[in-house]
Amino acid sequence: MTDYTKILLDESEMPTRWYNIVADLPVPPPPPLHPGTLQPATADDFAALFPRALIEQEMSTERYIDIPGEVLDVYRLWRPSPLFRAHRLEKLLDTPAKIYYKYEGVSPAGSHKPNTAVPQVWYNAQEGIRKLTTETGAGQWGSSLAFACAQFGLECEIWQVAASYRSKPHRRTMMEIWGGKVHPSPSNLTEFGRSLLAQDPDHPGSLGIAISEAVSEAIQDPHTRYALGSVLNHVLLHQTIIGEEALLQLAKVGETPDVLVGCTGGGSNFGGLAFPFLREKLAGRMNPVIRCVEPTACPTLTRGQYRYDFGDTAGLTPLMKMHTLGHAFIPEPIHAGGLRYHGMAPLVSHVLDLGLVEAIAIPQVECFEGAIRFARSEGIVPAPEPTHAIAATIREAIACRERGEQKVILTALCGHGHLDLASYDKFLSGGMRDLELTDAMLAEGMRGVPEIG
Amino acid sequence: MTDYTKILLDESEMPTRWYNIVADLPVPPPPPLHPGTLQPATADDFAALFPRALIEQEMSTERYIDIPGEVLDVYRLWRPSPLFRAHRLEKLLDTPAKIYYKYEGVSPAGSHKPNTAVPQVWYNAQEGIRKLTTETGAGQWGSSLAFACAQFGLECEIWQVAASYRSKPHRRTMMEIWGGKVHPSPSNLTEFGRSLLAQDPDHPGSLGIAISEAVSEAIQDPHTRYALGSVLNHVLLHQTIIGEEALLQLAKVGETPDVLVGCTGGGSNFGGLAFPFLREKLAGRMNPVIRCVEPTACPTLTRGQYRYDFGDTAGLTPLMKMHTLGHAFIPEPIHAGGLRYHGMAPLVSHVLDLGLVEAIAIPQVECFEGAIRFARSEGIVPAPEPTHAIAATIREAIACRERGEQKVILTALCGHGHLDLASYDKFLSGGMRDLELTDAMLAEGMRGVPEIG
Repeated sequence: MTDYTKILLDESEMPTRWYNIVADLPVPPPPPLHPGTLQPATADDFAALFPRALIEQEMSTERYIDIPGEVLDVYRLWRPSPLFRAHRLEKLLDTPAKIYYKYEGVSPAGSHKPNTAVPQVWYNAQEGIRKLTTETGAGQWGSSLAFACAQFGLECEIWQVAASYRSKPHRRTMMEIWGGKVHPSPSNLTEFGRSLLAQDPDHPGSLGIAISEAVSEAIQDPHTRYALGSVLNHVLLHQTIIGEEALLQLAKVGETPDVLVGCTGGGSNFGGLAFPFLREKLAGRMNPVIRCVEPTACPTLTRGQYRYDFGDTAGLTPLMKMHTLGHAFIPEPIHAGGLRYHGMAPLVSHVLDLGLVEAIAIPQVECFEGAIRFARSEGIVPAPEPTHAIAATIREAIACRERGEQKVILTALCGHGHLDLASYDKFLSGGMRDLELTDAMLAEGMRGVPEIG
Repeated sequence: MTDYTKILLDESEMPTRWYNIVADLPVPPPPPLHPGTLQPATADDFAALFPRALIEQEMSTERYIDIPGEVLDVYRLWRPSPLFRAHRLEKLLDTPAKIYYKYEGVSPAGSHKPNTAVPQVWYNAQEGIRKLTTETGAGQWGSSLAFACAQFGLECEIWQVAASYRSKPHRRTMMEIWGGKVHPSPSNLTEFGRSLLAQDPDHPGSLGIAISEAVSEAIQDPHTRYALGSVLNHVLLHQTIIGEEALLQLAKVGETPDVLVGCTGGGSNFGGLAFPFLREKLAGRMNPVIRCVEPTACPTLTRGQYRYDFGDTAGLTPLMKMHTLGHAFIPEPIHAGGLRYHGMAPLVSHVLDLGLVEAIAIPQVECFEGAIRFARSEGIVPAPEPTHAIAATIREAIACRERGEQKVILTALCGHGHLDLASYDKFLSGGMRDLELTDAMLAEGMRGVPEIG
């Protein structure tokens, strides 16, 4: 049985509840703070942005939350996702380690993002919301939300960073196929956007600006809300279906992981895979090393500070205690666009601070080298973000070879790279570089981060 | 059980042999002819192009051929592929019909093509061949062969139609990720290519020219062979794993199809799904209507002639009896590049001629309209080729609604459209047109088709 290539679950075996790690942490996570009063933010502070049900999940200490039936119905379009045993990669690396990867590229949008987009849209629909706004960079999150809105008949309006809107038209097309309305950001639809376009009609935009535009559109209409694709507790909660499925799948082949690695951008893919395994670890039922992998160009967990900061560049959000490079930090334009976030999910930051997980950073050239080895052995072309998890897996597998250890490694392949082939072309043609991140650049990023005792 | 969204097979349930329809046909198919002697082609006539094992399969009358273990091992990277019940599309169409679709987009290359690329490479490897050459248009076949060559350590050299090489760089990158070497065709690597470039340094190329270059490279080296991705008997044979799996999956939910529809370009996707069901029909175990769907811009089966013609534009191949628009026919540059072939698999042509299957043609705008409805309900963005099968399925489902018939419809979604988003952009922006195919254009295509009594 253990030489299976794909370990599948039937739909009837799909988990029917999400797992909330907050219930099991030895120390509760620090709360978000209202930026004016510096007091813990209340449900009302979020009410203009999110529906009540999601705010409740954001603040919940319940261990399990049932997945609504209509959400499960949409999940069934691609879930349970397969768990693969990487026989061919193991052979290529000549390692005694066993490598398993959980593959989320089977979703319609090609990544793990629909796991939270679908419930977010459903909860909004239940409260009579008719339209959702959001921001997107390369377009992974925007296309996932557009797909989810199409399932429940909501409008979806997306502000896409103008530079990406212009240079990567295919993700925009994908959003439009699912009925999404896409604007380049800055746009002339918001006051903030117009003010920026007045200064520079060719403004390239940024994720922070796009968030401001999406938020400002949402708060001015009682039937419109805003949706975020990572960082927040309720987003990580929805992603735990990844880890819950992986636990069931490994149990089918009688394995428990010795090492678990996942890439971290905002933290939702990592938390989604890792938190159910962390529950098992805290309960003493297994004892895996759990490792975050981030790019050296945006080393939030390995070189950032653990302190209160804003979630967005403009400083409009509540303050969150997290590992941060500072909301003014501008990472290099590396190819893993989804890992270019200055902060980190507060829950991931907290478990790192508690010593329950560890973190490393890997430069992108090593990541793409690993991705090519992976694609030629396992077939799947990975998105740039999970190439970090693959590179870390390869490091671990090679260490196992050198030490003669037959460890079980579990990682998350959170998306395919079909819309990222220009990045591969750059790598294959020798045009990809790793850039040194200096202390001065790090110091510059922390300007304006509030001093909170 | 029948309300499942995905009907899965475990790896242990994967079929272990391909089905050869030739064994069960009431009339044997007309043989290919040597173009010089007009006598039935012999194994020796193919020996410079293909390995012995594939030539044997091409001429075999055995009902079943075992799939080699190492081929099954690679198939396991994505097979068995899922069979979906299109609950959400049915609801959108308000039809009493039950719609099932077999999805081949889960393969590494994103289509059904690896089903034959993998065994073709394996059989070549067994006979000591070190390199395979092929042609590709948009790149679906070339990327599938590159993937398969990476699995067994063969070199892969691909001539890609120059116009596609320049305008669609992403498929080329995908071929290179898997280690393929890609040349624009015409190239200066072959005498034929050089002669064309001398006339026009910016020659856009054609599939016929690319075939000639790939063939001429293969025949001059004893360790190199050529590989073809559709049309031939052994290619359709390998694709029958699609239909064999679908039969098992439908049996799991207690269904037999009343209507089966598949898109036809060279015929391998259609044959792969349909032939196992045709076996069941010939044996009296079920009685589905089996329908080919082709584009109105390249209506081989509905407006072509059933006669002997060359497989390539230059007239180098053996003569095959098939439905053909003439090897001089130049179809409009429609978006379903994989369906722009002047001929049709001889086996598909033969079963149409025997009245065992039927054929219709659908214009591309209707196909993309159907694809948008499909993507918004089922999530998956289809490749342009299977949008024809989807449009035909929607026609059938609407007819069921109008007549109040609860038919079971089975179709093949033979690939995803992640690398075809420019076509969707053209459709969504209103720039896609259907062009009338005139009798004069059809007559022009038949020029030079030999008169054989």
